[in-house]
Amino acid sequence: MSIVAEYRVNFFDTDAMKVVHHANYIRWFEIGRVEYLRNLGITLDDMMADGFVFPITEVKAKYVSPGYFDDVLCIETRATALTKVKMAFDYRVYRKSDGTTLVTGHTQNVFTSRESGQIVRLPAKYHERLQKAMEQERAEKKQEQ
Amino acid sequence: MSIVAEYRVNFFDTDAMKVVHHANYIRWFEIGRVEYLRNLGITLDDMMADGFVFPITEVKAKYVSPGYFDDVLCIETRATALTKVKMAFDYRVYRKSDGTTLVTGHTQNVFTSRESGQIVRLPAKYHERLQKAMEQERAEKKQEQ
Amino acid sequence: MSIVAEYRVNFFDTDAMKVVHHANYIRWFEIGRVEYLRNLGITLDDMMADGFVFPITEVKAKYVSPGYFDDVLCIETRATALTKVKMAFDYRVYRKSDGTTLVTGHTQNVFTSRESGQIVRLPAKYHERLQKAMEQERAEKKQEQ
Amino acid sequence: MSIVAEYRVNFFDTDAMKVVHHANYIRWFEIGRVEYLRNLGITLDDMMADGFVFPITEVKAKYVSPGYFDDVLCIETRATALTKVKMAFDYRVYRKSDGTTLVTGHTQNVFTSRESGQIVRLPAKYHERLQKAMEQERAEKKQEQ
Repeated sequence: MSIVAEYRVNFFDTDAMKVVHHANYIRWFEIGRVEYLRNLGITLDDMMADGFVFPITEVKAKYVSPGYFDDVLCIETRATALTKVKMAFDYRVYRKSDGTTLVTGHTQNVFTSRESGQIVRLPAKYHERLQKAMEQERAEKKQEQ
Repeated sequence: MSIVAEYRVNFFDTDAMKVVHHANYIRWFEIGRVEYLRNLGITLDDMMADGFVFPITEVKAKYVSPGYFDDVLCIETRATALTKVKMAFDYRVYRKSDGTTLVTGHTQNVFTSRESGQIVRLPAKYHERLQKAMEQERAEKKQEQ
Repeated sequence: MSIVAEYRVNFFDTDAMKVVHHANYIRWFEIGRVEYLRNLGITLDDMMADGFVFPITEVKAKYVSPGYFDDVLCIETRATALTKVKMAFDYRVYRKSDGTTLVTGHTQNVFTSRESGQIVRLPAKYHERLQKAMEQERAEKKQEQ
Repeated sequence: MSIVAEYRVNFFDTDAMKVVHHANYIRWFEIGRVEYLRNLGITLDDMMADGFVFPITEVKAKYVSPGYFDDVLCIETRATALTKVKMAFDYRVYRKSDGTTLVTGHTQNVFTSRESGQIVRLPAKYHERLQKAMEQERAEKKQEQ
């Protein structure tokens, strides 16, 4: 399962080189991640209400081609790991009009107790959904091969 | 008492017109406001720990001249009201190198209980400091006239 | 004619008070403004290619109610002035799910020559569209009364 | 040669988890990079005036510990490659008060002709400065071993 979230580049997303400032894509990976989890029936609000925070521990991005004001971007997001303690996602941001890949990326985050700040294991109600999604990812990957 | 906080314009603060994007100044007013309160011995963290939040209720800005990448900006901040229930500030952002006024502005915020969401009155430990500062502002204004 | 653009609040739009940071709404007014002009067949890119920039000269906002992560916001935008030298817009940002008004605002911008930095008059191809839209706004306002 | 730029975390840099939003550090790497180049007598403005742009091609970050509102951060920046066609930098962002490492990172960018969009070689006036700095980096690294 890969989900695709759309985002139209705003003028405030550009910089003096007349292209999208590179740090914005790191923000937009979040749009994809949140949408992916929403599709599984998981919202960050619920998790926070249950005492979890999920800080990012790693970000990587390769910038292939510049994005411009008014481009409609597709943020394609695919999970590469969804466990009780961490999540990892791969991203591909491409321009909707011509399919050009602008940025590829990867993030990793861990589940942490809001109170103790320690890494914790997710309760079943979240974990089962993540596990099911991960199995689907693996099955799809196998099929592709 | 007016305080002056400095901020150097970053590349990520510019937009495709090669000037500072106008919404950034609204953020930078916050730098001035926080610095003003810090000078009175008041930190937002302390207030939040005491259960207060202080949402902005009004913002106004006039844009006089554009700011550019690498400009060192001076955010001059002056209180126009500091009461138990609200604060109001005036701002002037100017370029340090030549004194050119870039933006003038005004904000107002109210003290709110984090729990109830209702407007509340500040306890004495904060209010006394605000009152003293406000008296000083008035005295200075009188002297200027 | 008023247009309504939608924007879903991202996690990166919130601040440590767990609400949308107030400066973001100033950015989102731009989303409404750009969409309004797009509906008239005017894109900022075309105007910039023709040598015009359109700096904001004034911003005002009143914050009525906080916005939260994952809220779908409606940015309602209406022109109050569209002339050869300036544009002014009124905004109302409300939560889609319950219609609550979060922020109301106003912006003004002027047309400026990219080269000279001077205020300039728009050529007919833009002005005619703006004029037609403004007449429509006036007609609608009359009808409302 | 490593340079250290300071940045105080603003309220608008935090998110609803009450920590600095992770994407901001990617912006702050830029502060370090720009300061490093400024120390060599190279400004982005000069390079842009000479027809060069220098898009980021790669970003990596590891998030070790959260940053908080009002923390003074030190952005330590060190060049790992400064050639005619690309630059690479390593970063360590730490809290000034206690030296805690918050984030480590790496970026790479290439020199590109503004006009053609092609990767180009820098003229001697820039390259000589970069080369001298790189030699110094290497000498220091040797000394450390």
